[in-house]
Amino acid sequence: MNEHTLGELLAAHQARTEQALERWLPQADIAPQRLHQAMRYAVLDGGKRVRPFLVYSAGQALDVPAAQLDAPACAVELIHAYSLIHDDLPAMDDDALRRGKPTCHRAFDEATAILAGDAIQALAFHVLAHDEALHVDAQRRLQMIDRLALASGSRGMAGGQAIDLEAVGKHLDLPALELMHIHKTGALIRASVMLGALSSAAVSEAQLKQLDHYAKCIGLAFQIQDDILDVEGDTTTLGKTRGADLALDKPTYPALLGLDGAKQRAAELYHEALTSLAEFGPAAEPLRWMARYIISRSS
Amino acid sequence: MNEHTLGELLAAHQARTEQALERWLPQADIAPQRLHQAMRYAVLDGGKRVRPFLVYSAGQALDVPAAQLDAPACAVELIHAYSLIHDDLPAMDDDALRRGKPTCHRAFDEATAILAGDAIQALAFHVLAHDEALHVDAQRRLQMIDRLALASGSRGMAGGQAIDLEAVGKHLDLPALELMHIHKTGALIRASVMLGALSSAAVSEAQLKQLDHYAKCIGLAFQIQDDILDVEGDTTTLGKTRGADLALDKPTYPALLGLDGAKQRAAELYHEALTSLAEFGPAAEPLRWMARYIISRSS
Repeated sequence: MNEHTLGELLAAHQARTEQALERWLPQADIAPQRLHQAMRYAVLDGGKRVRPFLVYSAGQALDVPAAQLDAPACAVELIHAYSLIHDDLPAMDDDALRRGKPTCHRAFDEATAILAGDAIQALAFHVLAHDEALHVDAQRRLQMIDRLALASGSRGMAGGQAIDLEAVGKHLDLPALELMHIHKTGALIRASVMLGALSSAAVSEAQLKQLDHYAKCIGLAFQIQDDILDVEGDTTTLGKTRGADLALDKPTYPALLGLDGAKQRAAELYHEALTSLAEFGPAAEPLRWMARYIISRSS
Repeated sequence: MNEHTLGELLAAHQARTEQALERWLPQADIAPQRLHQAMRYAVLDGGKRVRPFLVYSAGQALDVPAAQLDAPACAVELIHAYSLIHDDLPAMDDDALRRGKPTCHRAFDEATAILAGDAIQALAFHVLAHDEALHVDAQRRLQMIDRLALASGSRGMAGGQAIDLEAVGKHLDLPALELMHIHKTGALIRASVMLGALSSAAVSEAQLKQLDHYAKCIGLAFQIQDDILDVEGDTTTLGKTRGADLALDKPTYPALLGLDGAKQRAAELYHEALTSLAEFGPAAEPLRWMARYIISRSS
């Protein structure tokens, strides 16, 4: 991996994502102002934009121009952003900090945070249904909407959060822990890669399958690394409270496999992800870099 | 109006809606079970299904068979159901009863209620994107998804709820009150009529405009009648606490216009709704009945 190149590419996609999100989010001076302020506060906060990066990178691995990937990149990030707002609520994880800033319900109030999350979810589907830069046919676009809806719903992200809440204070074995993460973070990471891939009119079934397997591997690796960082990272770098999961007695990979075992599992998934990309050429390099970044990141 | 016929038609559409919702909702024994139980509890609760009725009736005014209207009917009801779950939360209206049963967060818990609402919103978009019985082209289906997303979001229903929360304890004049209701309940009622109409491949621009005006009128009338019932109705019939809005010092039509003035305004809107349907034949009778029902209902 070329650290320099990945850093530049991450920054470029981040900037592109910010611009696209800025375009789609309602202005803060349009009524209802407080709601729109809360939506912008929670979305335009300098997140890493890992999911948009995956949309752009999967699309570009299939020669889709970046402009055609802005809408799916925004849509997945909007779903991610709304889920963070709701996960942080007092009735859920009760977090005070997110990315180093007060969480949405702390900066505004609980009711506004709930509604901002709700409205951001709706906006994600508006973006996919409405965007005029997408160059795939309407049928394909419906497929993208359907993927995103399934990945967000009760058998995807929202379901994973429900399993996570139920698991607090319980012992989960490895298959149960992976099932939770496949829902909670994995579903949206897979949807990100799939939406990027489906933006290509020419993508083959075999390519979709390979990219989906890549996404499954990095999705799990991402969560394992999150658990590792929760043990090893420091609060300043993370932008959230260190050891928060352990304090809540949540099941984690380090708790189940030990710290070394967790790192070993992440490395295995990294290699499996690369193997899935074997038939892709140099255009898939950013996907390879992202796999590496996921298991080596420090925040 | 033939009360007998409307009653039968309401019951028939209700039964059809229940069956369709039952088909689309995940079974309660599929993991995550508690989340799926909460979703089913909140959706399959014997609501009046006014919005699905509007989808079916608008579609049938344009000769669309009922089977092609099940998906949009479900989608609008799912959006309505999720909004009720979130509106009832302690941080919002803090309601204990909904349709005579404990609200979702009382029957389950707050976190589950938030997630159930989130997952139900996603399900609405899945239904529209996925359904195979819709006989319109993919482009038209995207239009339907876009309408529903806009009606649900910050410039529709979620925005209306935000305006409503901000208005507690404040004096609103009539235009401000109407602006709130146009968002809060009006947007989804209009989307219901529009989704039914857009299910016809042959609907004209003029027809869409007439139906949209009809929907605007009955949407406002619906809210005025809600306010009137909040003053006049009894708790048993309403399934919610009488006078709850007044107790919360929320602006209402009777407070602004007096009870007689509010009734007069509802009657004017009823007649305007009928005028909008002047060019529609007998197939639009159910829409006319619904307009009448809205201003004469007692719960």
